[in-house]
Amino acid sequence: MTAPPPPSMASRMTAPPPPSTASRMTALFLRVLTFAFLVVSLVILTTNTGTLEIGFEEFKFRFKDIYSYRYMLAAIACGLAYTILQIALTLNHIVKGNGVQTSGDGNLVFDFYGDKVVSYILATGAAAAFGATKDLKTQFAGLGGDKFFNKGYASASLLLLGFVCTAILSVLSSYALPKKV
Amino acid sequence: MTAPPPPSMASRMTAPPPPSTASRMTALFLRVLTFAFLVVSLVILTTNTGTLEIGFEEFKFRFKDIYSYRYMLAAIACGLAYTILQIALTLNHIVKGNGVQTSGDGNLVFDFYGDKVVSYILATGAAAAFGATKDLKTQFAGLGGDKFFNKGYASASLLLLGFVCTAILSVLSSYALPKKV
Repeated sequence: MTAPPPPSMASRMTAPPPPSTASRMTALFLRVLTFAFLVVSLVILTTNTGTLEIGFEEFKFRFKDIYSYRYMLAAIACGLAYTILQIALTLNHIVKGNGVQTSGDGNLVFDFYGDKVVSYILATGAAAAFGATKDLKTQFAGLGGDKFFNKGYASASLLLLGFVCTAILSVLSSYALPKKV
Repeated sequence: MTAPPPPSMASRMTAPPPPSTASRMTALFLRVLTFAFLVVSLVILTTNTGTLEIGFEEFKFRFKDIYSYRYMLAAIACGLAYTILQIALTLNHIVKGNGVQTSGDGNLVFDFYGDKVVSYILATGAAAAFGATKDLKTQFAGLGGDKFFNKGYASASLLLLGFVCTAILSVLSSYALPKKV
């Protein structure tokens, strides 16, 4: 004959602890930080123009002329859309009140996959931009494009910071993941 | 008055299910696949040489001359070292016998962070290589470097496949993560 578990354990089993307000605030803070990094990165990227002097001719160029920067733009757009959606969902949840536990396991799974995929997208966007900037800057050394590529570095660095925030969020959402889905 | 949970639930609570042999075999299969992709990618990358024709001069160049490919090499090396370590640990565990449950929570946490970090490294390596290859190929169009950059694409694609395997492993190890560490 086995002894039944004490009531405290039984109640713990039937009612899993809800995500605490503190952890929700940490996540919200990180998402707002990601949003800020991505917006500044986007502004620097899209307003960046440069001039190359080849012989006696001058060539104007923008970020659109470099394919890696186009991918970077797409990555930032994805990241911004996802971050805004998550901030809206969190605010909606806070306004509705923490007492009502309306979010089920589905939300946690969405957070998990969303954070994971978006963090990969941001990481690859930053990496592509860094790689292309480094190698193109070497190719065009002495032709007057240094300022353009330095701004490319700045934009990629901010995207990298946005990625770091999303990667931390991804770790948090992995720990919050319900087992056996 | 609440009814005590049935004995089956009580026993499930006290003894968490060990990672099944099937899931361990899936992980081993994915790691061997990652290893294969990374080795082929490494071979293509390091044996790749090209010749550029500028005017009447010919310039020989290797992967070392492109910074993004150097980063890619570092990413592949990291990925290979980690994958070999994990394969060795898994084989060691299988040889010792599945019955003895020697691996604690620490191993699961190591898997989680290891898979996560290494998958980011592989993703950024592939992205940097793709970005630089695309943009440099456009710059050197018509100078005879197409074959070199096509091999660069092949190498980056295999690295991308290695990343996909590691990303799947990262999802699996997130689900295996013990709660409240």
